[in-house]
This record gives sequence, C-alpha cells and structure tokens, in this order.
Amino acid sequence: MGSGHKDDKGSFGPDPLSPTSPIGSHKCPSPSPHSSKEVWKKGGRVFSILLAINLVLLSCTLVSGGAFQEVKLHDYDVFFMLIIVMLINIAWMLFYIFRTSRLQGAIPCKDNHAGPIWLRGGLVLFAVLSLVMDAFKTGYYSSYYKCLSPIRIMFPVVQGVFVITQTVFLWMSAQDCIHKHLNLTRCGLMLTLTTNLAVWMAAVTDESVHKAESKNPIANVTHRMALLMMRAASQAENCACKSQLCKIFQNGYYWLYPFNIEYSLFASAMVYVMWKNVGRLIDPHDNHIHQLKFKLFRRTYFLGTIVGFLVLVTGIAVLIVYEIQVNSKEDSKRTDQVLTMYFGFNIICLSLMSAICIAGSIVYRFDKRDMDHHKNPTRTLDVALLMGAALGQYAISYYSIVATVASSPRDTINALNLSYSLLMLAQPTFQNIFIIEGLHRQPPEEEDKVDPQQKDIYGLTFVNMNAVSLRVPESLSALPPSALPGLAIQTSEARRSLKASKKMNWRRRFLKEISVFLLLGNAILWVMPAFGARPQFDNKTELAFYGYPMWAAIVDICLPFGIFYRMHAVASLLEVYIMS
Amino acid sequence: MGSGHKDDKGSFGPDPLSPTSPIGSHKCPSPSPHSSKEVWKKGGRVFSILLAINLVLLSCTLVSGGAFQEVKLHDYDVFFMLIIVMLINIAWMLFYIFRTSRLQGAIPCKDNHAGPIWLRGGLVLFAVLSLVMDAFKTGYYSSYYKCLSPIRIMFPVVQGVFVITQTVFLWMSAQDCIHKHLNLTRCGLMLTLTTNLAVWMAAVTDESVHKAESKNPIANVTHRMALLMMRAASQAENCACKSQLCKIFQNGYYWLYPFNIEYSLFASAMVYVMWKNVGRLIDPHDNHIHQLKFKLFRRTYFLGTIVGFLVLVTGIAVLIVYEIQVNSKEDSKRTDQVLTMYFGFNIICLSLMSAICIAGSIVYRFDKRDMDHHKNPTRTLDVALLMGAALGQYAISYYSIVATVASSPRDTINALNLSYSLLMLAQPTFQNIFIIEGLHRQPPEEEDKVDPQQKDIYGLTFVNMNAVSLRVPESLSALPPSALPGLAIQTSEARRSLKASKKMNWRRRFLKEISVFLLLGNAILWVMPAFGARPQFDNKTELAFYGYPMWAAIVDICLPFGIFYRMHAVASLLEVYIMS
Repeated sequence: MGSGHKDDKGSFGPDPLSPTSPIGSHKCPSPSPHSSKEVWKKGGRVFSILLAINLVLLSCTLVSGGAFQEVKLHDYDVFFMLIIVMLINIAWMLFYIFRTSRLQGAIPCKDNHAGPIWLRGGLVLFAVLSLVMDAFKTGYYSSYYKCLSPIRIMFPVVQGVFVITQTVFLWMSAQDCIHKHLNLTRCGLMLTLTTNLAVWMAAVTDESVHKAESKNPIANVTHRMALLMMRAASQAENCACKSQLCKIFQNGYYWLYPFNIEYSLFASAMVYVMWKNVGRLIDPHDNHIHQLKFKLFRRTYFLGTIVGFLVLVTGIAVLIVYEIQVNSKEDSKRTDQVLTMYFGFNIICLSLMSAICIAGSIVYRFDKRDMDHHKNPTRTLDVALLMGAALGQYAISYYSIVATVASSPRDTINALNLSYSLLMLAQPTFQNIFIIEGLHRQPPEEEDKVDPQQKDIYGLTFVNMNAVSLRVPESLSALPPSALPGLAIQTSEARRSLKASKKMNWRRRFLKEISVFLLLGNAILWVMPAFGARPQFDNKTELAFYGYPMWAAIVDICLPFGIFYRMHAVASLLEVYIMS
Repeated sequence: MGSGHKDDKGSFGPDPLSPTSPIGSHKCPSPSPHSSKEVWKKGGRVFSILLAINLVLLSCTLVSGGAFQEVKLHDYDVFFMLIIVMLINIAWMLFYIFRTSRLQGAIPCKDNHAGPIWLRGGLVLFAVLSLVMDAFKTGYYSSYYKCLSPIRIMFPVVQGVFVITQTVFLWMSAQDCIHKHLNLTRCGLMLTLTTNLAVWMAAVTDESVHKAESKNPIANVTHRMALLMMRAASQAENCACKSQLCKIFQNGYYWLYPFNIEYSLFASAMVYVMWKNVGRLIDPHDNHIHQLKFKLFRRTYFLGTIVGFLVLVTGIAVLIVYEIQVNSKEDSKRTDQVLTMYFGFNIICLSLMSAICIAGSIVYRFDKRDMDHHKNPTRTLDVALLMGAALGQYAISYYSIVATVASSPRDTINALNLSYSLLMLAQPTFQNIFIIEGLHRQPPEEEDKVDPQQKDIYGLTFVNMNAVSLRVPESLSALPPSALPGLAIQTSEARRSLKASKKMNWRRRFLKEISVFLLLGNAILWVMPAFGARPQFDNKTELAFYGYPMWAAIVDICLPFGIFYRMHAVASLLEVYIMS
C-alpha cells in the first residue's frame, strides 16, 4: 500500500551493477518518473485492496462461522458465495484473455522475473491433482444427492472449471505488465486473489475439522458434515456411504486436499505479482533473467542429492509407520514408541539442515558476488512470504515450549518434544537467512563474464565453469602485431582469474549441493504434516496444559502457514539453486 | 522487509517536483546508490526482525496462556518476563542517550518528518497518564502485599521508570538517523518496539478479561485476579479490598488503562520510524517540512469546529447515560432503550462523517496540487497502520452483519445494529481514502510560491492567503526600464493567478473544516469503546448466534485494533489539517 510509487524509481542515474545488455527482455518504453497516471494508480490500488479486504473478511466470517456446529451458519452458505465469486472470476479471466490482452499496446513489456517456468509447472501439476480431487468430490457428493442440497455437488464442478480457466490464464499471462483497463484489471486480479484465499480457507477449515474429529479426546462430533450424515442416515437408510466406490471417493479426496491447498496458494502468489505489475513500466536493466537455467540441470550434484533422497525416503517410511500405528492402536506405549521415532527422525533431519544452512551462510560471507538491488516484486513477495509463513511454525513452537517447560513429568517424550520445538524455531530462522541472502545475489554468469572485447580477441571463455586448461587461442595468429607485446601479461592475468574462478566453482558447487539437500529436506517436512501427521495432538502434554479448545485453535490456525512455509521454501530453494 | 533497499533511491535524476530550497533540513551527505554497507544493512535488519518476532511470539504465548484460568500459566510469569525486558531496554536507552548519540558523526542528519511536535506532545500526555495509572496500580497492589507475590508490586514501579526513560529517549531522539553502532541500535529499537507491543498485549488482555467478567452471561469468574482475590479472601480476612483508598486505586487504574494502551502504540510507531531511519542518508530534497504549522492554528475555522464539538459533547453524554443504564439495571426494556439511543447517535454521527469524507474526496479531485512522491517512512507507516487497524473494525462488522441478517426476529434493535455495522464498514473506508489522499499532497506553501525571481522584481506576495487587493509594488520605480514593457501582461497574469489562489483558499478552507470535524468525530468514536461501551455484548443477537466463547474471542481480538484505528485517524487527520 505504502509502496505504491516505487515502480518508476530505482534505476535512474548511473548504476555500476546493471548488466550491459538486457537478456531476453522485451522492448519497454523508458518509464517517466512522475506521470499523471500515477496519481490515479494509487487510487486504483487502494480501491482494489478495499475490495479484496471486504471479500476476504466476508468469506472469513462465513467459513469460521460454518465450522462450528452451534453457529447457525451452514457450509453451503460458504459454497454458495464461492460459486458466485468463482463464476464472476471465470467471466473476467475470459474477458482478459480474449479482450484486454488483445488490445493494441496492452502489454508493452513483460516482467521476466514473474511466473518462472518451474512455478508454472508446479501450478499445472497441482491443478491436475486438484481436478482429480474435484472429480472425487463430485462423485462422493453425488452418492448423497437425495439428502444433500444441490449446491454441494455444484461446488466441485464449478471449482473444476475455475481451476482450468485460472491455470490457462496464469500460464498465458503471468508475466504481463498490462496497460489497458487498468482499474478493471486490478479489481479482477484482486478478486481472483481473494477467491483463491477463500478457497484455501474453506479447504483448510474443512481439513482441520476432519482431522480434529479423530484427535478430539472428548470425541463429540463437531463436524457439521458428519453430523449431517448421521442425521440423514437416521432419516433414510439410503444416505450412508456404503458402496465401495463412495468410500474410495471419500478417502481419495481427503488425501488430495493438500495439493488443492497448495494450488490456491501458488495461484494467489502469482496473481499478486501480476497485480503489482499492472501499469508497470520496466526499465530494461532490471529485467534480465538467468539464461543458463536448464543447462545447469544437466550437471550432477552428488552428495546433496543422495543424502537428500535418503532423508526423503526415510521420512516417508517414518510417516507411514507413524500413521498406521497412531491410527490403528490406542495403546499408549505403542504411541510413545512411534512418537519417539517421529521426533527422533525430525530432530536429526532439522539439526542436519540447520548446520548446513549455517555453513551456507558462512560461504556467502566469502562470496564476492555483488548484491542485486533491482526492483523485483516477485522476490519481495518471496521474502515477505518466507518470513510471514514461518510465523505459523514459530507460534506453535513457542506454545509447545512453554507447555513442555512448565509441565512436570520430564520424560523422554517431553525432552524430545522440547528439542523438536526448539529446532523448529532455529531451522526456519537459519534457512530464511540463507535463502534471503541467496535470492539477493547476482546470478553468476554476469559476474564471470570477461570484458566482451577482451574475450573477442583471445577467445578465452571463462564462462565455462569446468574450464581446467587454458586453451590456446585459435585466433592468435590473426592478431595485429601491435597487440602482441601485452599478451604475456594479459595471459598471466587470465591465469590468476582462472584460479579465482576455480575457487569460485567449488564455492558454487557447495552452494548447489546445499540447496538440493535443503530442498529435499523441506519437501519431506512438507509431506509429513500435509498428509496428516499431528504429533501436536498425539503427544498429550500441550493438550493437558492448554485444554483441547485452545490448543486445537492454535494448531488449526498456525499449522497451515507452517505447511505453506515448507512448500514455499522448496520453491525459493529451487531459485537459489539456479542462481548459485 | 522487502523494502530494505529503498532508502537510497527515489530522487536521483531530474525531479520536477522537488522544492528549490530545502527548508529547515540539516546538511546531509549525498547518499551513494549502492554502498558496501548496504549489504550488511539487510543482514542487520533481518537479524533485528527475527529478534522482534521471537520476543513478540514468546510474550503472546505467555499473555494468552495467562488469560485463561484453566491454563497453568500465571500472569506474574508475564510480569516477570516484562520486567526483565524493560530493564534491558532502560539500560540500552541510557546507553544510546549517553554514548551512541554522542559519538562523532553519529547523527549526520535528522528526518524532519519523524516525530512531529504534536505526536511527541501526545506521547508526553499519555506518558503522564500512564504514570498516574502506575501509581494507582502500585497503591492497589500494595494493599495486598501480604497475599500477593512481590512481582506484582514491582511491575508498575519498573513500568513507571520505563515510561519515563522511553519518553525522554523519544523526545530527544525520534528524528535521529543514527550512523554508529548500527546493529546494536537496530536490535535495541526492535527490543523497545516489542516491549511496547508486549505491554500493549498484556494491558488489552487484562482489560478484556475485566470487561468480559461483567458481560459474560454464564457469569462464572474466569479472571485469574478475581479468583485469586476470592481465594485469598477466604484464607485471610485482611486481603479484601475494603478501604476507600484501595477502591479508588482500583477504579482509577481501570479508567486509565486506555491511555496506557495508546501510549504503548504511539511509542511503538515512533520507535518503528526510528528503526527505519537507522543508517539512512536523507536526500535534502526529501526532507522539507511544513513550516507554517502553528501559524495556521491561529485562524478560526468555524463550522467544522462547532459541529465537531457538538458531536463530541453529545457523544460523551450518550456514553455516560449508556454506561449508567446498562451497568445498573438489568431490565431488558431499559437496555433496549439505551441501545437504541447508542446506535442512533452512532448512526447519525457515522453517516455525517461518511458524507463529509466523500465530499472531501471530491474536492481533492479538483485540487491541482501535485502528489508528493518522496520517500517518507512515517507516511508509509501511517497509511499501513490506517489500513491495517481498520481490519479489526471490519471483522467485527462482518461477523455482526452475518449474525443480524441470519437471525430471525427482525426488531428495531436488529435493524439499528445492521445499519450501524454497515456504516462501520463504510465510514473507515471513505475516511481512509480521504486521509491517504490528503497525506500525499504537497503542502500548499510550495505550490503557491511564485517563481522567486519574479517575486523579487515585483514584490508581489501571493503566499498570503487572504490577499484581497493587489498591492502596488513599492520597488516599481527602481526597476530597470527594460523590464517595464512586460509588466502589463505579467500583472494581468498575476490577477488571474490571484483569482485561482482565492478559489484555492475556499477549497483549502473547506478541507480544513472537514479535517477538524472528522478529527473530533473520531475522538468521540475512540472515547466510547475505549471507556467501556460494549454494545456488541449488550445486544444479544451476536451472542446468541455465535455463542459466548467465539463472539468474545472475536470482539476481544479485533476491538483493540478498532480502538487504535480511531486514535491513529485522529493523529493523521491533524496532519491532513496542517497540510491542507
């Protein structure tokens, strides 16, 4: 809000760091510092933000009201609102694709930082899984069509159409800096953003309620759906989920929830960046991208990948054992055993990751690459989301630590829980420092580039990272005689530079290994809570200390942010990997 | 976080709007675009933010845990932590005053936008009232010194010392852009910020619990203090608050709570701006201030002030009647009457304010003054706080609207409640738009200034807003003959310009009237909830709809932000008044 007029600033005047030629950027008109349009820009932004705030609050009210059995709100009130908003959204996105973006001069330039290919790829992957979930949900609700309001069946169908339209829209337009229909586009984007957030809230609440049912020690059914089913079942026999197909649908859609949740958040982030880019004129200097992206994937990085995969596979095994043991047996000794295993694995994993993040930050201290200070809404958002989403995990850890320290029986489980909570505070902190530093570095290819003129003369390519031998320049004989006397000196300079470059290669390789390992580590730390591990409830210390309602509220509100943090860290580490 | 590198940008290159001479700014060295220090700046910032996050979360855990009777946390756990943090803070502030700020070259320039005199004046006023509260609190707890832990008596004493030190510190240093002990100062400021937030949280929670006691329909005592008192009273007779003095202390400190709450928030805002200014080099162009501040106060603005004071006085009368009737009588018909009165007053007041905000925004549409785009952390914070704090009010309104619409008995009270909630959504929205637009205008004296050369020649002073006659320039005869031919044309131009200036005066006067009225309106809307009016609980619709625990949680979390919004709007409107 307050940063509304930053866009047109930032790179007037001499800038020693800007690359000499913009790579892969479209031709943009040079931004004028204080155009008259800017006056209105702030107005348009404020208006669309107000629209978003109101919609988010309304859906927040309906979703939170619908989650409690005693409140006279029904979850189909939420569905009804969401269906209407999604339909408006679909209409606007089609209008954007077929009208706004085709106007003359609508998209004078594109922001190459926005919507990188791996983010869009992830979006499509999650979209496909969301569609499968919607199909399952439609199938599940269709089994009950006699006892349920038709809105429940309509919702997944409309959501499916929305997911398809939005994915196409973002795939095509994520990089646009639109310059037509400014205010309409701003409002449309904010509507899309809030719709995604509302869908996310509804999904998270639904899942939390579902999880809470099985974990609540008082075991009274608070979930509206279950209650409705029970009531319906008592009314008519044909309303129970008896058929094999219905059971598959039910289980299937609960397992696919995490992907739908991540889809909404990914889409929100991309839409936000699009909103920031509405009406933006990009200085070509700011708009270089990292070209060697996928070439680098060909290199094999050994240790990080192997250890990472080891952790990943072990983690999945631990999760499966944990889920089976905790859900099937109510034997407290067995529960203690699996909790010990779960905490043990997490503690080892987190300690390793913390140590490695610290090592990475130390390596950055010796890294001579300059900081990249160009305006980049995508990066600003990334950093803000990393710091913000970590708060969810922090909050749970603090409540857990206070409860563990204040509780009297200091047994093994409590000690493990305390270590786990402390590491859950430390690891995201170190990791954030590492990622933020990584994101602010200049990509290496620009640093390594020798003065192009010099390169032309001697044909030396220092860009090649594995250059181990100094190749004799082929064009040496073609040189004018006057250039020869300086060659000896320049070659020895080149040798020194090569040595430095070699050293840099080791550093870079180390950073890459670290990134891959952290990426896989975060992936397993995402998988565990996303697919149902809730040591917060299985371990009774906090439940006894805070009481069920308070502890459930804390975990249900904060854990979704913690889960999102891991997912977002994976995306950011992928970027760090590519940039180092 | 993401805006870490904005400081050194923003006004390189040609800037048509920058005033020709910086008024009242200290000499600052010109900022260099990408200094090596900046690399570390981000690091220092991230580190201090992490410190703040951790401290806030820890105090949030302790405060929220201590508020519930069934949780095994005591409120003196919170007090203990706060005492330690405040002592560290006092030590650091003294170190800053006597060491850091006295180093050579420590403060090369000051940010003239930070800590304006009225903000510092407000801070001192609230500080004095906070000290009175601390004295009352010490007196009250001292009556129980036999049954209570000494930490309870120590807390207000330490808080008093902290308030004094902090007020002196902020009075002296609010404008500093410190350039020594960068990281220590950043951490110290963040520590101060979080201490203030923690004190705020503790005070708000304490007050909410106190209010909730009297409003809870189930009427079981959940307040730890009351419970403790009861338990203590049953143990020993000398522990009850029987003496007249003790009762005065008790009532006195509850009435002074709102001022202490506002003190903490004011101090937090000022400390945040100081933190943003650490290590900042200010371009002299950005650093002009509005010199005619207090001169303008001499002018009398009639209508706005009178209507505003009328509203203020009526509001206070309504509040007193409301409080007496609601608290003394449990007769539901009487309660309905006072609720009708309360809602009626608020609806009239809010409608009037909304209409006036819209009128003000329309006037701005015709205002030719340019937008001020210079970097200004104070303003950015103001805007963010206005938008953010309004969310609290919005959330309550949305929950209220949903409950009112969904509830069946559509009587007068419900209709009034619905209108009130809708207006509580609309009014802050319009007001925010008006204030944001006002804050981004250039102060008028710079716009009105005629080209200085021209002014020198003819001695015409268009700056005088009440200039009704075109004075004959005294230095006319001293003019060189060559300058005379153009005089006729230039004088007619000056006449036109005078006409425009007169029109502008009307506009300006209108804006000033509006600001004064809105200021007083917001003051009464602050006073009412701050001093205990809770129509949210006295009106039973929402209570019945959401149930007591959920509705109490919503109101207790969101209302403090709503109250802060009003206070902050008062401060911002004062600034708009001065700038227009």
